[in-house]
Amino acid sequence: MALPPPRLVLASGSAARLRLLRAAGLDVTTVSPLVDEAAARDALFAEGVAAADAAAALAELKAASVARRAGDAFVLGADQLLVAADGLWLEKPIDRAAAAAQLRRLGGTTHRLVTAAVLFRGAARVWGHVESPAVTLRPLDDALIGAYLDRAGPGVLASVGAYEIEGLGAQLVTALKGDPFAVQGLPLLQLLAYLRNHGIGLA
Amino acid sequence: MALPPPRLVLASGSAARLRLLRAAGLDVTTVSPLVDEAAARDALFAEGVAAADAAAALAELKAASVARRAGDAFVLGADQLLVAADGLWLEKPIDRAAAAAQLRRLGGTTHRLVTAAVLFRGAARVWGHVESPAVTLRPLDDALIGAYLDRAGPGVLASVGAYEIEGLGAQLVTALKGDPFAVQGLPLLQLLAYLRNHGIGLA
Repeated sequence: MALPPPRLVLASGSAARLRLLRAAGLDVTTVSPLVDEAAARDALFAEGVAAADAAAALAELKAASVARRAGDAFVLGADQLLVAADGLWLEKPIDRAAAAAQLRRLGGTTHRLVTAAVLFRGAARVWGHVESPAVTLRPLDDALIGAYLDRAGPGVLASVGAYEIEGLGAQLVTALKGDPFAVQGLPLLQLLAYLRNHGIGLA
Repeated sequence: MALPPPRLVLASGSAARLRLLRAAGLDVTTVSPLVDEAAARDALFAEGVAAADAAAALAELKAASVARRAGDAFVLGADQLLVAADGLWLEKPIDRAAAAAQLRRLGGTTHRLVTAAVLFRGAARVWGHVESPAVTLRPLDDALIGAYLDRAGPGVLASVGAYEIEGLGAQLVTALKGDPFAVQGLPLLQLLAYLRNHGIGLA
């Protein structure tokens, strides 16, 4: 008798990540991790940890928090750090004023979206990958930022940088270099390759 | 009194292109061009025209056909040629057997998606751009191709190559290099930049 395929659990409340996984045909459930992301991120930045290592550490923190409660499922943790041209890290804006401030800072420059994904199974980290695509925004003045935020609505608060490249945010972007799936929140192709070698997906 | 913005007409029945444009916030209508695309493509291939030039010529043919009937609107024509590793051009598969044959040919190799867009206004071609991203598919055997086509359904017939990278087709792709919007059918960022300098979009 064939065993049922292992389950996949997304340790995140991110609608964008869930959408990417489901569009690729995966059966996935979500469990929100019980971690203080902002405190962990601030500590990693204060310690001078490189962005790729910090994103991986944050993704691990989330996956590990859920994996303890997930039996033998694969638990996916992910994190995305926006590294501005001046080296500062931005997190999701908490309100419209913060979104406007982020866009003012990013306009006319190139930033990196350091995007980590890890898989845990039980207590073990079994896979991890980081991609760091670069996105260039056009120069943005206050009138344009206001018009953009009016039209885009509160959904922008779900994205670091306050733009969604698969939506109206494309109007702000002049160039994208690197993994487009990572821009949306997950290094999807690498993740799918690992999962289908372990019984999840179109093998 | 401010003039109303010029109109944008998509000279194509492509649902994917319409989706890209609307997601970016554009107000667009579609008019199907009255051209024999397959005959034009075959003639260009037989003449040994380079793929980028042929895609641009086919996009122009479609835009010009609609522009005559579109007043002062901007008319967008687009074309995508899949150039296989052996140099052959593939077009949209006409049925499931053709889709399976394309996937058999493309599996385990890298192909280019030569994607052209042009804008006409009246009789004049006012803008054009071509991007040629490269996509690598994993090795595909008949069982996997069958399972994929069963799950993906007839929607695959809308894509050259018979896979949609933004859907279940991501399960077949191992690498993507180049413009991800062009993979989906339009060099979107370059198009948006031109349009917003001419009164269409978020200026």
